[in-house]
Amino acid sequence: MKDKIQEFKECIKEKKYLLASIEVLQWELETLAPKKGQDYLSEVLAYMSMKDYELSTSDKFQNLVRDLLQEKESLDPILQKEVEQAAEEMEKMKKIPAEEYRAYAELCAKNQGVWEEAKQNNNFQLVEENLTKIFEYNRKFARYLQKEEKNLYDVLLRDYEKGMTCEKLDVFFASLKKEIVPLLHKIQKKKKQPFPFLTSPISKEKQKEFCHLLAEYLGFDFERGILAESEHPFTLNINKKDVRITTKYVEALPFSSIFSTIHETGHAIYEQQIGDELVSTLLGSGGSMGLHESQSRFWENIIGRSFEFWKELYPSLQTHFTSLKTIPLEEFYQAINQVEASLIRTEADELTYCLHIMLRYELEKEIIEGTLSVKDLPKAWNEKIEEYLGITVPNATEGVLQDVHWYAGLIGYFPSYALGNAYASQLFHTMKQELSLNDYSQDKLQEVRLWLGENIHQYGMMKTTSELIREITGEDLNPDYYIEYLKNKYEALYQ
Amino acid sequence: MKDKIQEFKECIKEKKYLLASIEVLQWELETLAPKKGQDYLSEVLAYMSMKDYELSTSDKFQNLVRDLLQEKESLDPILQKEVEQAAEEMEKMKKIPAEEYRAYAELCAKNQGVWEEAKQNNNFQLVEENLTKIFEYNRKFARYLQKEEKNLYDVLLRDYEKGMTCEKLDVFFASLKKEIVPLLHKIQKKKKQPFPFLTSPISKEKQKEFCHLLAEYLGFDFERGILAESEHPFTLNINKKDVRITTKYVEALPFSSIFSTIHETGHAIYEQQIGDELVSTLLGSGGSMGLHESQSRFWENIIGRSFEFWKELYPSLQTHFTSLKTIPLEEFYQAINQVEASLIRTEADELTYCLHIMLRYELEKEIIEGTLSVKDLPKAWNEKIEEYLGITVPNATEGVLQDVHWYAGLIGYFPSYALGNAYASQLFHTMKQELSLNDYSQDKLQEVRLWLGENIHQYGMMKTTSELIREITGEDLNPDYYIEYLKNKYEALYQ
Repeated sequence: MKDKIQEFKECIKEKKYLLASIEVLQWELETLAPKKGQDYLSEVLAYMSMKDYELSTSDKFQNLVRDLLQEKESLDPILQKEVEQAAEEMEKMKKIPAEEYRAYAELCAKNQGVWEEAKQNNNFQLVEENLTKIFEYNRKFARYLQKEEKNLYDVLLRDYEKGMTCEKLDVFFASLKKEIVPLLHKIQKKKKQPFPFLTSPISKEKQKEFCHLLAEYLGFDFERGILAESEHPFTLNINKKDVRITTKYVEALPFSSIFSTIHETGHAIYEQQIGDELVSTLLGSGGSMGLHESQSRFWENIIGRSFEFWKELYPSLQTHFTSLKTIPLEEFYQAINQVEASLIRTEADELTYCLHIMLRYELEKEIIEGTLSVKDLPKAWNEKIEEYLGITVPNATEGVLQDVHWYAGLIGYFPSYALGNAYASQLFHTMKQELSLNDYSQDKLQEVRLWLGENIHQYGMMKTTSELIREITGEDLNPDYYIEYLKNKYEALYQ
Repeated sequence: MKDKIQEFKECIKEKKYLLASIEVLQWELETLAPKKGQDYLSEVLAYMSMKDYELSTSDKFQNLVRDLLQEKESLDPILQKEVEQAAEEMEKMKKIPAEEYRAYAELCAKNQGVWEEAKQNNNFQLVEENLTKIFEYNRKFARYLQKEEKNLYDVLLRDYEKGMTCEKLDVFFASLKKEIVPLLHKIQKKKKQPFPFLTSPISKEKQKEFCHLLAEYLGFDFERGILAESEHPFTLNINKKDVRITTKYVEALPFSSIFSTIHETGHAIYEQQIGDELVSTLLGSGGSMGLHESQSRFWENIIGRSFEFWKELYPSLQTHFTSLKTIPLEEFYQAINQVEASLIRTEADELTYCLHIMLRYELEKEIIEGTLSVKDLPKAWNEKIEEYLGITVPNATEGVLQDVHWYAGLIGYFPSYALGNAYASQLFHTMKQELSLNDYSQDKLQEVRLWLGENIHQYGMMKTTSELIREITGEDLNPDYYIEYLKNKYEALYQ
C-alpha cells in the first residue's frame, strides 16, 4: 500500500510537470510568442497534452488509481480527494479517443492566432470553420461523457460548475432578469451625465505604471507572479509560486486596463493563497469556475468600484492620469459605475453585465443543442444584443469575436461569470458581518484577503463550491443577495 | 528501410518537441519567471531534459540509428548527416550515467537564479559551492567522454569547436598577443580624449525604442522573433521561425544595450537564415560556437562599430539619445572605438577583448586540469586582470561574477569568442572582394545578409566550421586577417 501511494505520487509529480509545460506554452502563445512561431509552439503544446493523456490512461496509473480507490477510507483526506479526482478525470479521458483529444487540443491552441487575426480584421469567416469544429468536438465529447444528464449542454457545464444544469440556470437567470431589467429601465429613463474623462487618452506607459502599483496595493505578490499584456486579459498559474495575470492597455479607454487588472488580481490572490499542503497535489488550484469568478468579480466590482476603495487610491490615480486632476472623487465614482447598454462584456457595468452573460449562455446552448449553426451565430448574436440591450452591433470585432472563450474551446464557461457575481454578493454579505469594512486601506484589504484565504482559498479543490457556500454563508446559492446588492448600490447612485 | 527512416523521423520530431520545451523554459527562467517560481520551472526543465535523455538512449532509437548508420551511403545527404550526428550524441549520452546527467541539468538551471543573486550582492561565496559542483561534473563528464584527447579540457572544447585543442589555442593566443599587445601599449601612451556622453544617462524607454529600430534595420525579422530583457544578453531559438534575443538596459551606460543588441541580432540573423529543408531535422541551427560568434562579432564590430554604418543611422540615434544632439559623427565614431583597459568583457573594446577571453581560457583550463580550485578563482581572476590589463578589480560583480557562462555550465565556451573574431575578419576579407561595401545602407546590409546566408547560414550544421572557412576563403583559419583588420582600424583611429 505504501509503495502504491509512493508510485501514485510519482505519477502525479510527472503529470504536474507536463501540465506546467502546457501552462508555460499557453502563456507564451497568448503573450509573447512571435507570430510565425506560434504554429510550432502549438504543436509542442499538443504533444505535451498527448503525453499527459497517455500518462493518465496508462495501465500503470489506472491500476494505481483503482487500487487506491478501493482502500480510500485508509488514505489521508487530501490523498483520498486526489485519488477520487484522478479517477474521475481518468474515466473522462478513457471515454474520449486519444487522437480526437490530441487533434482538439491542437486545434484550440492554433486557433488563438486565427481568432486574433479575425478579431483584428473584423472577419468572422476567418475563424468560422475552426469554431464550427470546436463546437462539433464539444458536442461529440459531451455525447461520450453523458451520464444521467438530460442534455448535452449539462455535460459541458460539469467541467466548470459541477452540479449545475440548464434547468437551474434558467431559473437563476429568470430571477435576475425579473429584478434587474425593471431597475435598468428606470435608470435608462434618467438623463445621462457625460464623463468625457472616461475616454480621454492616457499613455500606455502611465497605465502600465498604475496597474502595477494597483495590483501590488491589492496584494498581488510580484515575487510569485507576473503582470503582462495580452489581447484578452487572463490568469494562468503554474502553482501558487508562479501566478500570471495579463491586462490590455488601450490608450483611449484608460480605465479598461485598471478594471481588468483588478479582476485578474482577484483570480491571482485566490491562487496565491492556496494551502501549502496542496501544492504538489492535483488539488492545488482554485475550485469551480463560478467560485473563481466570484473572487475576481468581488475584487473588480464590490471592492474595485466602491467609493471607499477609491477614497484611498484616487490621489495616486490622479498623479498618473492627469486628465483626472480636476475631477472630484465623487464624479469619478459615478463615472466608473455609470449604467449604459454597451457592446463589450468586459467593459459592461455591473447591471447590464448579466445580460451579456445570458445571451452567451443562450447562444452556446442552442449550438450544442443543434438549434443554431455557427454560421448563423453572428446574426443571432446581433439580434440578441438588439433585443436585450437595445443597441446595434456595428461589427463582429465588437460583437461575436470580442471574447476568446469559444475560440479557445471554452463552451459552458460563460454562466460561471453570472454565478460568480451571485456567489460574491452572498459571501460579501457574510464577510460584512464578521469584519468591520468602513474603509479599504491596505491593512483592511489584508484582513479581507485573510478572510478569503481562511474561508475559501486555502482549500483549493478540497471542497466543492456548494459545500463552501453553505459552510460560510449558512445557506445554498441565493441570488437575492446579488439582487439586493445591485438595488442598494444603483438606487443610491441614481436616486 | 523506408519504415526505419520514417520511425527515425518520428523520434526526431519528438526529440525536437522536448528540446523546444526546454528552450521555452530556459527563456522563461532568464527573462520573465517570477523569483519564487524559478525553482519549480527548473525542475520541469530537468524533467524534460531527462525525457530527451531517455529518448536518445532508448533501445528503439539506438537500434534505428545503428541500422541507418550501416546503410548510410544510401541515405540522402541531410539524413546521412543527421544520423551521424545522432550516433555521436547517442554515444555521448550513453557514457554519462542518467542520474548524473539529470542532476547536472537541474543544478545548472537552478544556478541561474543563485548566480543572479550572487552578482547583485557582490558575493561569490553564494555561488561557490554550486560552481565547484559544476566544474566537478564537467571534469567527470570529460573523463567519461575522453577518447584520443590528451587532456580533459580538449574534451570539453569538442562541444563548442570540434577539432580545437589547447595546443592549437595556445599558439593562436600567442600570435594575437604578440601583435596586439604592442599595438595596445602604443595606444595607451597617447593622451586619452574624454567622451562624457558615453555615460550620460538615457532612459530605458528611449534605449528600448532605439534598440528595436536598430534590430529591424539590421534585418531581424520580428514576425519570427522577440527582443526582450535579461541580466545577461543571449540568443535562443526554437527554430528559424522563433528566434529570441535579449539585451540589458543600463541608464548610465546607454551604449551597452546598443552593442549587445547588434551582437545578439548577429546570432539571430544566422538562425533566421537556416535552410528551410533543415528545420525539422537535428541540423536546423547554427554551426560551431566559434562560427556563431563570428557572426555576432561581425555585426557588432566590423559593421556595428564602423564609420559607414553610423553614417546611416546616427541621425536617428541622435533623435533618441538627446545627449548626442551636439556631438559630430566623427567624435561619436571615435568614442565607440575608444581603446581602454576595462573590467567588463561585453563592454570591452575590440583590442582588449581578446585579453578578456585569454584569461578566462587560462582559468577554466587550470580548474579542469586541477591546478586551480574554484575557491581561489576570484583571487586568480583579479591577479590576471591586473597582469594583462593593468587595472584593479574592485568587486566580484565586475570581476569573476560578470558572465553567466561558467555558472550555467558552459566550460570551454569562451575561446569561441576569440575564434569568432578571427573567423569574422577572415570572412570579411573575402566578402569585400565579392561585394562593393562602400556604405551600409539598408539595401547594402541586405546584400551582406544574403552573402552570409548563401555562404554560411543556409547550411546549418551540414558543414563543419573548418570546411566552410576553407570553402569560402580558400584557406584554413588564419589569425593574420584579424590582426591586419585591427592594425588598420586602430592605427587610423590613433594615428
